[in-house]
Amino acid sequence: MAADPSIAAEAEAFFRAAPPLRDRDHIAASLDDFVARHSAGSGGAGGPAGVVCITSGGTTVPLEQRCVRYIDNFSSGQRGAASTEYFLKAGYAVIFIHRRGSKQPYCRFIPEDSFLDLFELGEDSEIQVPQSHSAVVKTSISNYRKAIDEGMLLKLPFTTIFEYLQLLQMVATSMNCLGHRGMFFLAAAVSDFYVPWESMAKHKIQSAVGPLNMQLNQVPKMLFILRKKWAPLAFCVSFKLETDPNILLQKAEMALKKYGMDVVVANELANYKDVVVMVTNSGRMTVSRRSKEEDLEEQLTKLLAKMHAEHASLPKSEDHQTHAN
Amino acid sequence: MAADPSIAAEAEAFFRAAPPLRDRDHIAASLDDFVARHSAGSGGAGGPAGVVCITSGGTTVPLEQRCVRYIDNFSSGQRGAASTEYFLKAGYAVIFIHRRGSKQPYCRFIPEDSFLDLFELGEDSEIQVPQSHSAVVKTSISNYRKAIDEGMLLKLPFTTIFEYLQLLQMVATSMNCLGHRGMFFLAAAVSDFYVPWESMAKHKIQSAVGPLNMQLNQVPKMLFILRKKWAPLAFCVSFKLETDPNILLQKAEMALKKYGMDVVVANELANYKDVVVMVTNSGRMTVSRRSKEEDLEEQLTKLLAKMHAEHASLPKSEDHQTHAN
Repeated sequence: MAADPSIAAEAEAFFRAAPPLRDRDHIAASLDDFVARHSAGSGGAGGPAGVVCITSGGTTVPLEQRCVRYIDNFSSGQRGAASTEYFLKAGYAVIFIHRRGSKQPYCRFIPEDSFLDLFELGEDSEIQVPQSHSAVVKTSISNYRKAIDEGMLLKLPFTTIFEYLQLLQMVATSMNCLGHRGMFFLAAAVSDFYVPWESMAKHKIQSAVGPLNMQLNQVPKMLFILRKKWAPLAFCVSFKLETDPNILLQKAEMALKKYGMDVVVANELANYKDVVVMVTNSGRMTVSRRSKEEDLEEQLTKLLAKMHAEHASLPKSEDHQTHAN
Repeated sequence: MAADPSIAAEAEAFFRAAPPLRDRDHIAASLDDFVARHSAGSGGAGGPAGVVCITSGGTTVPLEQRCVRYIDNFSSGQRGAASTEYFLKAGYAVIFIHRRGSKQPYCRFIPEDSFLDLFELGEDSEIQVPQSHSAVVKTSISNYRKAIDEGMLLKLPFTTIFEYLQLLQMVATSMNCLGHRGMFFLAAAVSDFYVPWESMAKHKIQSAVGPLNMQLNQVPKMLFILRKKWAPLAFCVSFKLETDPNILLQKAEMALKKYGMDVVVANELANYKDVVVMVTNSGRMTVSRRSKEEDLEEQLTKLLAKMHAEHASLPKSEDHQTHAN
């Protein structure tokens, strides 16, 4: 994997032209604090498992500076939210970079838009949950409070591709000090195309007469920069989603090689909840859900944690830089 | 307002080519039942206030048939959710056509993505709400349960422009039997452009090489069909959102005339929570929020309910068909 100055230059240009992230200083402070608290672990059998950055949900591409319209990438955030729960259970500290409004850890069971349907008031105005949901709601509140109170979960929201990539850069450079103990689990659906901020319409595009024509630029391949510059020692897992099964595995292999990922998880839109293929340098492994009651993410995160532990115990010369070539 | 055969033909072509609505029969049944239960009201001082169809949130335009990418219209759904609460309070039955995941009535106070932050478990594992939020959460649960249990609220979700327009057509034709007692409060942010289903990419668009070019068609002007064909006697309120204040009122006046609306509510993205202008055939009226604690929708819905009552008591010859010309 040779350095590619053109990708680096494109990435720099992208960040230079992006609208600055709001609350950047505040985010940086809580991030550095979080990473520092979890940097002491040994990664050994008894010590903490490590820190995983999970990205989740889709990014938007604004079409207007005062944004009324945007292009969006479909992703419920189910994969990222479920995986956050299982990585926390396995002892990981989790930085959850998520799309605003996407699925959240410990809330996945809630029927969409019907949060209030879960509750009723008792005779003394106390809040009650119908018997049918009582156990799951209580377990969720308890697990969530534990993760927050013990400082194991940091949630960072994004909406646009500009916010997402700036957050990813901040988290990755901050996690660099963790070396092999860091993991990236890049499940967010990131836009391939965008409209550069400076060339964007300032006001709402008028429907006026006739069809609308748009030209979109390619988003720089940031996975490459993440691996090469921001966090070169981390264990990197990216996701490939396609609707056409005929090109899926081939595209996953390409991503593995091109970006030096440790694992590319290939999934198809039609059945991503039931089966995925983990593509690595040592081969492919199919992971299937064994029953409707089981989350695929339970197996997936277990396998990844195991591979990450092996990665973290490798001597330096054996790290990804070798097997990515 | 003369009939325009070309708009009607465009609308027909749009519906013919749209992917069919899922659960259409089930939705039709609950809709007809809801309207029938509320059709008996007199509209007089003591009787029910009427039925209002509120549309809320933004529509998406899929760019691929197996949808990974789509264009979206920004709208939190705040306006529609708040107005639903106030119309219910005023005695209206409400059909709430809303974007999945947008703001819901009685849930507006919840910090985004932090529903679980509202709750904790007591010593006996009972669900508690911190003192600071207790009153508001309890009032919300109580008001929501009342609306549902008394059959005053019907929630119908959509995501795409195809789903939205099919739902609107079903609701409008079903509400036609209510005559003047029906109201439409069209706050949804509806796409002006779309990709016709049959010309849409079947699979995910590949990022391959170079920029992406897209051509989008105009969505037929359904407000015109709503007014002319689906529910000609209803009281119709539409919304106009612009980012450029210089063209806002002019565009609102145009919509009033062109589509025969009774009211067009003009709002600017920069301050839509603080001030709107109601544009009608008898002039303009500015509605401003009097304090940070007040919802603008409280005043807005009161004024509209008053105008609707006047509309409902008009003799037939005085209906919109006259003043829309």
